[in-house]
Amino acid sequence: MVVTELTASVADLVEHLAKLPGIGRKSAERIAWHLLRVHSSEAIALADSIRTVRENVRYCSQCFNLAEQELCAVCRDATRDAKLLCVVEQPRDLTAIEHSGSYRGHYHVLLGRVSPLDNIGPDQLTIDALVDRVREGQYREVIMATNPTVEGDGTALLISNRLQESGVRLSRLARGITSGSMLENTNREVLTDAISGRQPL
Amino acid sequence: MVVTELTASVADLVEHLAKLPGIGRKSAERIAWHLLRVHSSEAIALADSIRTVRENVRYCSQCFNLAEQELCAVCRDATRDAKLLCVVEQPRDLTAIEHSGSYRGHYHVLLGRVSPLDNIGPDQLTIDALVDRVREGQYREVIMATNPTVEGDGTALLISNRLQESGVRLSRLARGITSGSMLENTNREVLTDAISGRQPL
Repeated sequence: MVVTELTASVADLVEHLAKLPGIGRKSAERIAWHLLRVHSSEAIALADSIRTVRENVRYCSQCFNLAEQELCAVCRDATRDAKLLCVVEQPRDLTAIEHSGSYRGHYHVLLGRVSPLDNIGPDQLTIDALVDRVREGQYREVIMATNPTVEGDGTALLISNRLQESGVRLSRLARGITSGSMLENTNREVLTDAISGRQPL
Repeated sequence: MVVTELTASVADLVEHLAKLPGIGRKSAERIAWHLLRVHSSEAIALADSIRTVRENVRYCSQCFNLAEQELCAVCRDATRDAKLLCVVEQPRDLTAIEHSGSYRGHYHVLLGRVSPLDNIGPDQLTIDALVDRVREGQYREVIMATNPTVEGDGTALLISNRLQESGVRLSRLARGITSGSMLENTNREVLTDAISGRQPL
């Protein structure tokens, strides 16, 4: 259908917005109307912040977290426990762990997981850099915090095989029932994890 | 909470995205990760299209639809029925009617509705321009297509009072049951509209 009533640049904006995750065509139109209605400076500020992010943000040369300098904020922080290393798939996983406030060591971001279906092999991840970091021998423990999925588990297994010879202590995140959940609604896999990983009281 | 792990410009982007309608903090973060992951040209294209929209789009000098020239695409279209005028609240209402494909006349966009609660009076709308357009006397009929709400109805009533003396024929969109709905689930107001507006078979 030829939509004569949208101007070319509005149609173009809707097109771009509709490519964002979780944004359908309707939402894209609503956001476009919003951007047309708000003060121009607000719309321009959004445009500029997208541009700034892509111009300023890169990967930390040490851990591959997002950074605006050579090293990311975590790697630059001298108060962190430099003997602990937590391996995550993506910067957003790191963010989630940071939000929990329960970890004060360093990270290593893989920038993905091994996924044969998506044609992502170990070479496309930052595993070599991780092995090099661990080989330098300053870590007491490496915590595998990949996602608890088939691909995440597979990636963790592959990495632990590569790290075996370094002699570093390896661990992974605990699995079990989630706080606030009801046993009767908990599935078999989760209950199996909870029983096999039961902790002394 | 100090979120040390997000870089300043990512935090800034999330902040801006979270201001968009229907985008909560979680969605804003997901979109920010997406914009960091896609090819830089795709992110920059979105930023540019926001900027372009705000720089190029203005209101049509005749009907106040969105336009990138003096007149909007509808007003420039010589194949339109120049004797019919449809009054809508917002450009997006015009878009909805255009999508229906059931109207081929001209429009007048009010850019709002009279809303005492939001401090929007008749003077903030394009009512004077509408009265001038109609006074020039070329229209056979003016169709009120404000939203079927208290404020939309109030705005339509106010406008029809102002247009009375011009002698133009006034109408409003039909109200009744919606195609595909079930009578048993239809509320009283809708049924009342449907009965009082019943049409000959």
